[in-house]
Amino acid sequence: MDPQTDGDGRLRHLLSLQGLSRAQLETLLRRAQGLTAHAYGGIGARHALAGKAVCTLFFEPSTRTRSSFSLAAQRLGADLLNFDASTSSTTKGEADIDTLKTLEAMGVHAFVVRHRQDGAVAMLARAAEPGTVLLNAGDGRSNHPTQGLLDMLTLRQAKGEDFSRLKVLVVGDVKHSRVARSDLHALRTLGCGEIRVCGPAALLPDDDTLQGCTVGDDIDAMLDGVDAVITLRLQRERMVDGLIASLAGYHRDFGLTAARLRLAADDAIVMHPGPMNRGVEISDEVADGLQSRVLRQVANGVAVRMAVLEALLGD
Amino acid sequence: MDPQTDGDGRLRHLLSLQGLSRAQLETLLRRAQGLTAHAYGGIGARHALAGKAVCTLFFEPSTRTRSSFSLAAQRLGADLLNFDASTSSTTKGEADIDTLKTLEAMGVHAFVVRHRQDGAVAMLARAAEPGTVLLNAGDGRSNHPTQGLLDMLTLRQAKGEDFSRLKVLVVGDVKHSRVARSDLHALRTLGCGEIRVCGPAALLPDDDTLQGCTVGDDIDAMLDGVDAVITLRLQRERMVDGLIASLAGYHRDFGLTAARLRLAADDAIVMHPGPMNRGVEISDEVADGLQSRVLRQVANGVAVRMAVLEALLGD
Amino acid sequence: MDPQTDGDGRLRHLLSLQGLSRAQLETLLRRAQGLTAHAYGGIGARHALAGKAVCTLFFEPSTRTRSSFSLAAQRLGADLLNFDASTSSTTKGEADIDTLKTLEAMGVHAFVVRHRQDGAVAMLARAAEPGTVLLNAGDGRSNHPTQGLLDMLTLRQAKGEDFSRLKVLVVGDVKHSRVARSDLHALRTLGCGEIRVCGPAALLPDDDTLQGCTVGDDIDAMLDGVDAVITLRLQRERMVDGLIASLAGYHRDFGLTAARLRLAADDAIVMHPGPMNRGVEISDEVADGLQSRVLRQVANGVAVRMAVLEALLGD
Repeated sequence: MDPQTDGDGRLRHLLSLQGLSRAQLETLLRRAQGLTAHAYGGIGARHALAGKAVCTLFFEPSTRTRSSFSLAAQRLGADLLNFDASTSSTTKGEADIDTLKTLEAMGVHAFVVRHRQDGAVAMLARAAEPGTVLLNAGDGRSNHPTQGLLDMLTLRQAKGEDFSRLKVLVVGDVKHSRVARSDLHALRTLGCGEIRVCGPAALLPDDDTLQGCTVGDDIDAMLDGVDAVITLRLQRERMVDGLIASLAGYHRDFGLTAARLRLAADDAIVMHPGPMNRGVEISDEVADGLQSRVLRQVANGVAVRMAVLEALLGD
Repeated sequence: MDPQTDGDGRLRHLLSLQGLSRAQLETLLRRAQGLTAHAYGGIGARHALAGKAVCTLFFEPSTRTRSSFSLAAQRLGADLLNFDASTSSTTKGEADIDTLKTLEAMGVHAFVVRHRQDGAVAMLARAAEPGTVLLNAGDGRSNHPTQGLLDMLTLRQAKGEDFSRLKVLVVGDVKHSRVARSDLHALRTLGCGEIRVCGPAALLPDDDTLQGCTVGDDIDAMLDGVDAVITLRLQRERMVDGLIASLAGYHRDFGLTAARLRLAADDAIVMHPGPMNRGVEISDEVADGLQSRVLRQVANGVAVRMAVLEALLGD
Repeated sequence: MDPQTDGDGRLRHLLSLQGLSRAQLETLLRRAQGLTAHAYGGIGARHALAGKAVCTLFFEPSTRTRSSFSLAAQRLGADLLNFDASTSSTTKGEADIDTLKTLEAMGVHAFVVRHRQDGAVAMLARAAEPGTVLLNAGDGRSNHPTQGLLDMLTLRQAKGEDFSRLKVLVVGDVKHSRVARSDLHALRTLGCGEIRVCGPAALLPDDDTLQGCTVGDDIDAMLDGVDAVITLRLQRERMVDGLIASLAGYHRDFGLTAARLRLAADDAIVMHPGPMNRGVEISDEVADGLQSRVLRQVANGVAVRMAVLEALLGD
């Protein structure tokens, strides 16, 4: 039994895509697809969470993810509280729990939490009362489950529900990427035909993250015939860390350019979690090209977050 | 006549609990008790303040108090504006009044104000138009009236409405505490049987704050048989100020521990305005123990703020 | 054809008052006047933008203008997102467009944008999808169209709709003022009888901003018989820039005092965009006097912003 699921198989929290069944993932994705009509505005879903309070509790700043959750909560009619905990000097477990318990006592029903530390959101979930909902909006390098879901929704919209014959390539700094981990969990669970991972050796993890993946560092070879490319954001700090020699070198060896993209299937789609480093991991031509689904991913993000909030908080 | 009350005995502002009559306090507390059902969410009270605008105007940051008022305002259906005035370089009276008058001209009906300076909220109330409501969310060392009310509500829930046979102990830095001042005003007005105050001499006020209180520095003696203990937060700056020698020494002499709590009545409750310095003024065991009402205080805070907003702004 | 107007003469964005026809300005002003009743609260206009999302996207901080737009959007029933982009290290065109496109993909229907750079809002408008609305909340020295509209509304309320016999004086740092530019565009388009501009030579522009204006540096002469005085805020940085010698000298030569105001028409009104530097460009006596319309301007700001949001976003 997954710790985020209760005895009746009902999701209590969304902490990680790892451990969720294919049926659970597909139920969320179908509901998100149904909500895309409301994710661009309108009043159709406005009563689903009326009288419920959702708090974005960010121990690490992220205006984009926070905005996406804020719009999702408002479109479901929830009350919204933005609690910026990123300014706290040093975040310590005990103080973080006190913050959560205090807001919970005020009648916050769901917390959307981002945190620098791996496992911090699961730790907070354990401290919460039964009935309180925790949504992981990104913790450390571990999980970013709504990003994983929105990537899968984007893939389904382009390629259909059956992933068994799909070849998907993930390119970049998988080692430090919670996005990649959530994508890989979901792709495996949804039965993706072939998962390829490409990046410089220093940016690839040496644990079981890559289990079942085809791994290599020759992007041209890895691109051959793939149906989708998920390009990861390169943190510029990796150069300071000495993990890459230069941004130009990274672009030369791993940047997704129009010329390279021609090695993929003709109808391959390109995804990126944003914000993009144009000219580093992706060229302008690809970012803004016909095969790019970057803005569709953003739009799907609101629908996915509405679906998750509704599933966890609705009656 | 209290300056915050108009000629018909109706509250216009909530600036201080000092000056409010027992009947005024009890009316607010009864209404707050009635609202506790809505203070955890729901849509029952949603139309009370529809079309009214509430602005949190904080010249000193406090995310907890601001969050509590924000949820209270939303649960009454008010529009909400958060105006962070804490970043202003130097806050001067004239500029603060201009800020208030500007927001008032925009159609803000009620201001929830926190300010570093004693008397600043009353000063702003004098500058406001008739009909505009000011709620003091804490000014200097003087007043924190909604904290006083929520403490009284917590006490009533545990001990009943008749305070005449209660013994209540306030422990800590009373000198610098607006919470203590508001609690003492309310306890006196509600006819509390015995009010005891305990703390190091350097942290006890030498004005009429302690009027009618039993004062001492031997916490064990003071705890004997009390029905409730209100433990105050110790600002760590007091050590820098030279008012206490060390945090460990403070804990040894005034910290509320499980062993000490056994000196109080068996059913004594423990309160703290939060955030707690665990291991300083309160031990983990007491903070999280069965007698702790710390989270109940937080929950009551939303109900009290709803009751005050409704009383001052409702039709 | 004005670039902010589509082929059917319908406003798509509000980027500048320059280019708008007299009929367009008057339609907005009449609607704003009709909305003043709702601009102070109430639920009358609450459904106009239900289901629409408005995002304040400020690349330069301004809590007052942001608050005014926030209240306007809430009073029309829109969802509201505050996106603070002012903390970004260096704002570059490409990154700003990515931010806009991302929020647009999330289903934001209207952006209220403030930006340090001239032309930045128009640049973002060009990048937006058809149907997305951009409202300029101030860019560089160029435009602040809602401030121009609220000044015109204030003038109409005091002096009637026919501006042909009015004499209006603008005093101060016109060179660096987007407020002045928007006022001058509107006054010309609305057929103001005489527009006078007064300020130290170093603070007057040498381009076509002052086209059609009577210009001078003798404030006493310029005040003679005017019906309205628009006093501009003096940025204290102008002293550092060497454009003025001292604040006291500026006050002596260009400050609006009660004695000077007697040179204007008996029923002349005084306007200021706020926040005022009392004792510099305006004396306390004038700022708080009977002829001051400063707070009326603020109140009109909400009505004007409601009218513009409704015109651009409503059905």
